[in-house]
Amino acid sequence: MDYHFARRLDAAPESFLGRLFALSRDPEIISFAGGLPMTSLIDVAGIRDAAAAVFADEGETALQYTTTDGYLPLREYIAARYRSRLGLSATADEIRITNGSQQCLDLTAKILVDPCTVVGMERPGYLGAIEAFSYYQPRIKTVPMTEEGPEINAFSTLCREEEPAFFYGIPNFQNPSGTSYSDAIRRECAKCCRETETIFYEDDAFGELAFDGRPRMPVKAFAPECGVMSGSFSKTVSPGMRIGWIYAPGPIIEKFDAVRQAADLHPNVLSQTIMHRYLTTHDYEGHLSRVRRVYETNCRQMCDLLDDLLPDVFHTTPEGGMFMLATMPDGKDSMALFDACLKESVAVLPGVPFYAEGGGHDTFRLNFSTANEEMITEGMNRLAQAYRHCGCR
Amino acid sequence: MDYHFARRLDAAPESFLGRLFALSRDPEIISFAGGLPMTSLIDVAGIRDAAAAVFADEGETALQYTTTDGYLPLREYIAARYRSRLGLSATADEIRITNGSQQCLDLTAKILVDPCTVVGMERPGYLGAIEAFSYYQPRIKTVPMTEEGPEINAFSTLCREEEPAFFYGIPNFQNPSGTSYSDAIRRECAKCCRETETIFYEDDAFGELAFDGRPRMPVKAFAPECGVMSGSFSKTVSPGMRIGWIYAPGPIIEKFDAVRQAADLHPNVLSQTIMHRYLTTHDYEGHLSRVRRVYETNCRQMCDLLDDLLPDVFHTTPEGGMFMLATMPDGKDSMALFDACLKESVAVLPGVPFYAEGGGHDTFRLNFSTANEEMITEGMNRLAQAYRHCGCR
Repeated sequence: MDYHFARRLDAAPESFLGRLFALSRDPEIISFAGGLPMTSLIDVAGIRDAAAAVFADEGETALQYTTTDGYLPLREYIAARYRSRLGLSATADEIRITNGSQQCLDLTAKILVDPCTVVGMERPGYLGAIEAFSYYQPRIKTVPMTEEGPEINAFSTLCREEEPAFFYGIPNFQNPSGTSYSDAIRRECAKCCRETETIFYEDDAFGELAFDGRPRMPVKAFAPECGVMSGSFSKTVSPGMRIGWIYAPGPIIEKFDAVRQAADLHPNVLSQTIMHRYLTTHDYEGHLSRVRRVYETNCRQMCDLLDDLLPDVFHTTPEGGMFMLATMPDGKDSMALFDACLKESVAVLPGVPFYAEGGGHDTFRLNFSTANEEMITEGMNRLAQAYRHCGCR
Repeated sequence: MDYHFARRLDAAPESFLGRLFALSRDPEIISFAGGLPMTSLIDVAGIRDAAAAVFADEGETALQYTTTDGYLPLREYIAARYRSRLGLSATADEIRITNGSQQCLDLTAKILVDPCTVVGMERPGYLGAIEAFSYYQPRIKTVPMTEEGPEINAFSTLCREEEPAFFYGIPNFQNPSGTSYSDAIRRECAKCCRETETIFYEDDAFGELAFDGRPRMPVKAFAPECGVMSGSFSKTVSPGMRIGWIYAPGPIIEKFDAVRQAADLHPNVLSQTIMHRYLTTHDYEGHLSRVRRVYETNCRQMCDLLDDLLPDVFHTTPEGGMFMLATMPDGKDSMALFDACLKESVAVLPGVPFYAEGGGHDTFRLNFSTANEEMITEGMNRLAQAYRHCGCR
């Protein structure tokens, strides 16, 4: 039988995410290609105890249908944290719980993007966002990233001349580069968005993973009406529980609710209830401190090994998050490196899928949150071995 | 600030689902409008024990990222049940886990529907499907339901003349009518789909809720290449855990994986693992028998009360599931009934949103799975009171 698929499928890039998750399950391969939080940092005992308490106190509610907006106490917790940590005026009404923050990408594009609408992004930019947006057939226009954030003239030109449905960025410890926007660039982006009535979609999956624990002000702080933020407990507590959220102005939340309900009715009640119980009965701050310390140590170790073993490779030096980006000299090709790496049982992620408008052949992304110290040492040595054997484009 | 939303939002019908879920939380109202399984039938203790076992044995895996396809042992369980219960040739490769079966509706439309593509549906048809499909801007064409299933000549004409992307139906204990397809109509639908290469999307959320426990053969059994089935544990085990699935031919599964990954990466690992543990360590057949017995008793009670209290209202007599449909005489209007009912603190669901091409003003849906015997008696008496006061169109 001949199956006819919708034209939107033609617009989608070849997916790397599935291949990545599959790689991460092969025990022979030391993978710097994925984006898993370190398994040993997941507080299994704490979450187990939270789950037991939920079953004891509110099992029936946690297993029944609920409303689309999400578990109110969890939305209140998230709003209170925005208020206390960042001084924003967030309320639970402006927050919706989602299946990880990936669902925010899909549904935001669903409510804002018509075919051929321009969507602005960083170059390089998060490949999961490129994939999610692509099914709504936008024209993705990118702004090059500097060490301070998006190149502000290009950003301004994009907002003024292209009228994008929104600009998507990751101001804190970006995926893939690990770069953060400077405070000045955040303010400039906000000013430009206010002036042009451009929505700034601020993916803050990594904000809690600042090595120094210091909160960075979001772009939304300087342009509340323009700001859509998403957040996630996947990097800090547990990815398998699939709890993210969107924080957006009322008119956007209203449309978000409508498409969310059609998409899958409502978030997982059991996961939400356990997550809220965990956050409010365990030492979340202490947990975050532990995670930050380990990731900072891993990041420094990886940077030092890169400097020692691959001195002609440029790399970013993140102040948080889970990723850094490496750039090779002399036309070396990251797909060739990828293949050479697999022969050495190490995996890196070629940069190409992060470049929605093409390019990035000389870059690759390294994750430093998954492997422990010993694996990083061994893996970086394998990478150096592979690098010596890999060719140019 | 002026927000500009995508044109697809204009295509969406006003949603009733959110209003329904909200109503179901008002303790003053006896609601026959929603679709909740009876809370007291949820096996909280069993699921609690399954959760405890999961945390003890595989907590780290259950809380980490995973692959898009879903937890393999759960997919194998579902495939084995299709093989043993219905004699289908299902394998885990053809099954994907979703956030309830609602997500199957959204993602199937996403891969198959271009704007203006025809989608076939039953009249009346499930309103959650109408909502999910609408965001992909199809032309929905409906086939009237008889007591045996869709009127077969109209079904055949639709498949032959309109080349629908797919036909969506609920052969077992349909939502909203409670009607089931006869075996002959299932075979005729399958034959017509094979001849016209039409995909038959068979929503089987209620198949396990046959009062007599007897499995009905799906349309897919007679047209495997045309058949896409979805199923759910929401009606049988727990809606709050959000576990449904799709069972489809390989080429469709491949596209489904791509859009699923972009939509929210992968299903909830914790929920899937607990569900699998529950199904394999508890007496699922015994649990299903209890649920079926209660729902059958409720359904008969409701039918009897309708016959006694509202003798001029026609109603279907379901052999399973959770819903029946009532049709009023003399141009009585179900929106007027809805308003009259709320004054009496009882809720029914007007039929209008189930009619994608208009109509249904004289119909309303009654749910018999949520309320207990006492509430049904009280609620039906309130309904009779409201009925006497409600007007005509």
